[in-house]
Amino acid sequence: MNILRIIEKKRDRQELTKEEIEFFIKGYVKEEIADYQAAALVMAIYLNGMTKEETTNLTMAMANSGEILDLSRLGEIIVDKHSTGGVGDKVSICLLPLVASLGVPVAKMSGRGLGFTGGTVDKLKSIPGYKTEVDINTFIENVENIGISIISQTMNLAPADKKLYALRDSISCVGSIPLIASSIMSKKIASGADKIVLDVTVGHGAFMKNIQYAKILANEMIEIGKLANRETVAILTNMNEPLGYAVGNNLEVIEAVKFLRGEMPEDLKEVVIELGAYMIKLAGLGNNVEENKTKMLENIANGKAFEKLLQMVEHQGGDSAYLKDLDKLPKAKYVEPLVASKDGFIYEINAEDVGKIACEMGAGRIKKEDDIDYTVGIKLCKKVCDKVLKGETLAYIYANDIEKLQNAKISLQNIIKIDKNEIKKEETIFGICE
Amino acid sequence: MNILRIIEKKRDRQELTKEEIEFFIKGYVKEEIADYQAAALVMAIYLNGMTKEETTNLTMAMANSGEILDLSRLGEIIVDKHSTGGVGDKVSICLLPLVASLGVPVAKMSGRGLGFTGGTVDKLKSIPGYKTEVDINTFIENVENIGISIISQTMNLAPADKKLYALRDSISCVGSIPLIASSIMSKKIASGADKIVLDVTVGHGAFMKNIQYAKILANEMIEIGKLANRETVAILTNMNEPLGYAVGNNLEVIEAVKFLRGEMPEDLKEVVIELGAYMIKLAGLGNNVEENKTKMLENIANGKAFEKLLQMVEHQGGDSAYLKDLDKLPKAKYVEPLVASKDGFIYEINAEDVGKIACEMGAGRIKKEDDIDYTVGIKLCKKVCDKVLKGETLAYIYANDIEKLQNAKISLQNIIKIDKNEIKKEETIFGICE
Repeated sequence: MNILRIIEKKRDRQELTKEEIEFFIKGYVKEEIADYQAAALVMAIYLNGMTKEETTNLTMAMANSGEILDLSRLGEIIVDKHSTGGVGDKVSICLLPLVASLGVPVAKMSGRGLGFTGGTVDKLKSIPGYKTEVDINTFIENVENIGISIISQTMNLAPADKKLYALRDSISCVGSIPLIASSIMSKKIASGADKIVLDVTVGHGAFMKNIQYAKILANEMIEIGKLANRETVAILTNMNEPLGYAVGNNLEVIEAVKFLRGEMPEDLKEVVIELGAYMIKLAGLGNNVEENKTKMLENIANGKAFEKLLQMVEHQGGDSAYLKDLDKLPKAKYVEPLVASKDGFIYEINAEDVGKIACEMGAGRIKKEDDIDYTVGIKLCKKVCDKVLKGETLAYIYANDIEKLQNAKISLQNIIKIDKNEIKKEETIFGICE
Repeated sequence: MNILRIIEKKRDRQELTKEEIEFFIKGYVKEEIADYQAAALVMAIYLNGMTKEETTNLTMAMANSGEILDLSRLGEIIVDKHSTGGVGDKVSICLLPLVASLGVPVAKMSGRGLGFTGGTVDKLKSIPGYKTEVDINTFIENVENIGISIISQTMNLAPADKKLYALRDSISCVGSIPLIASSIMSKKIASGADKIVLDVTVGHGAFMKNIQYAKILANEMIEIGKLANRETVAILTNMNEPLGYAVGNNLEVIEAVKFLRGEMPEDLKEVVIELGAYMIKLAGLGNNVEENKTKMLENIANGKAFEKLLQMVEHQGGDSAYLKDLDKLPKAKYVEPLVASKDGFIYEINAEDVGKIACEMGAGRIKKEDDIDYTVGIKLCKKVCDKVLKGETLAYIYANDIEKLQNAKISLQNIIKIDKNEIKKEETIFGICE
């Protein structure tokens, strides 16, 4: 077998065999296949596509390129949850303790944020004491003892995917459906998932800008799931405006805590409840999605979900006192309101733009080695479609630097768009693919 | 400007601007653009093609990436000749002294052979004393004084093309019409050509295996020539069997000398006369192609063409005595005949296979640093369509190693294919594109 023949086949629209895909992935990780050869193959894949079988074989080859987390000793169906990324996305922190409180085992490795989208690991780390770098034994023991653990990716999971992703980024080949799908699914499979619930975000603040492509991506991942024997459900969710009101690490933790105490922004609630209902279903704990939703709302009302969050935080070294009394959490030096310059209705709050402002204030990383400032961010007071009066507060900006605060204020003023006419509210859930 | 955007445009079938193509070529030569980025772009070009304007801009950018030979002090129209390669291709050694004897100035930089195709430089070097590494001043002076000089590429011509060619070879992207066309034309333009006559070979022993693709390539180069203000004519010639009878450096020199003395194999004669007639036309020395052909045959008959060859050889340090008395040339240790195993008609002598046998005996290079044995090779006694009788000599094998001789004999026996039925003779000239 040789890489020239493999490139030639894909160049000429022929289907690659499982063995050829494995040969490529193994050779690339071992650096026996050069970056430029991988680049040519990736561009050929981008332009000529892959069949479902090829995409699945690529997924499995990447999953098998490093360590595979073995969660079989838990003796339960492990349902993993993954989001394709968004702004104000605190879904995992709300959702996972909630489903854990209903008996769904949660053994989750989360990612750090990069660019304008946040990462669950950073948000959890903003809780004083919370340790995300936990050894695998403690991780599994926590799941056994309290039913939940959320850590950062400490293992060498799918190194081929890391290498390929970096390459794609440097050759304008990120946006290829089979490559995105196999990248996501390979990481989920390597991190021990038996079944997978995907939050495929769509809109300004998401990687997928339109529903049509998001559906193709969702169905591609579901197909991979089928062929790889990992049942997968994908929920298409709206990411045109930020999810909920808070953007920024501490601010989002506060929103998540309030959520689990029953103070639920409508869009966030819809997403969390929909994803959770399917996690419960895939875990084999309730076939009726509507009943699952009712049970979830009950466990928010009766405090069990919040209790599970506190338990998880404590088991990972976090100080739950900060969550019981949110006022104790560190605060940004400056908090400044942004007010409406006219009467009207909000017709757009571009999530990507809001994410970028928060990122520039220090809430996210521009380069991967950047430090994060947990206290800064934006708290919206209004959502798209809301009516506003001139002088009314649209948002609060949390900053530790006066210049950055001023820049953020100017930018945000332009981003929260007001018109005299009321617009029709968009759906939060665009569809469910299973 | 940035390379990611350029890759993205070509990926999405948008036309690249002159500035973008120049940015790529300059950056790639300076190593500011990585090999893997160039590889992705090249694959996108392979799959999505290039417009005539893009191909011309690529050609000029590559031509301008290194030194450009300035032949303007000659004050004449310089017509360059280029062949896309073949087996037994001694056309330049016959053709160039011939047209020079009719007043066409010849200032030619030739290439070395690699793989199964030979190179004019190696053939000339097989003439004792002939120096192909000549400084540019002497080169130009020779053209001024005697109207002809053929040297090897000593200048740093089109380094971008060298880099890109090596890359294409390692990513299965050699066979792209715009990339082949711009590669050839960039070198011609860098070596100072005002006008160009191309010998586009077609068949088993050529890069282009079928006439359809050869025509596309020819027309692409003619278009580049037009846009780059270098009038170009392409002659499509048959390279299914070796050209003439001799394959191997000294053997081909002998055949070329005999040619200029009037002993002309039919196919070689057709190619030389056709190319020459157009060189004379482009040089502005005769608009009537048929008249040009007559003049060429006259200069062979009256000895002026051979005289010009001797003059050129002497001016480059060669000993013309070897050409006046061909028996003086060094000989291979073993010369063995191959005889026909049955009566019939020859229906195939695959040029590539013959080239490979000669190469393995030492007539060519497998790796670019290999030494060449000038004396070894194959001299066919028959051509395709010839009648043969059992026991009749089909070819002589010239070797300096008894094992290589035996291997060559066994291979050649299978390559010279005999059938009881006579086949129709193929054309030597498939067409003329101008």
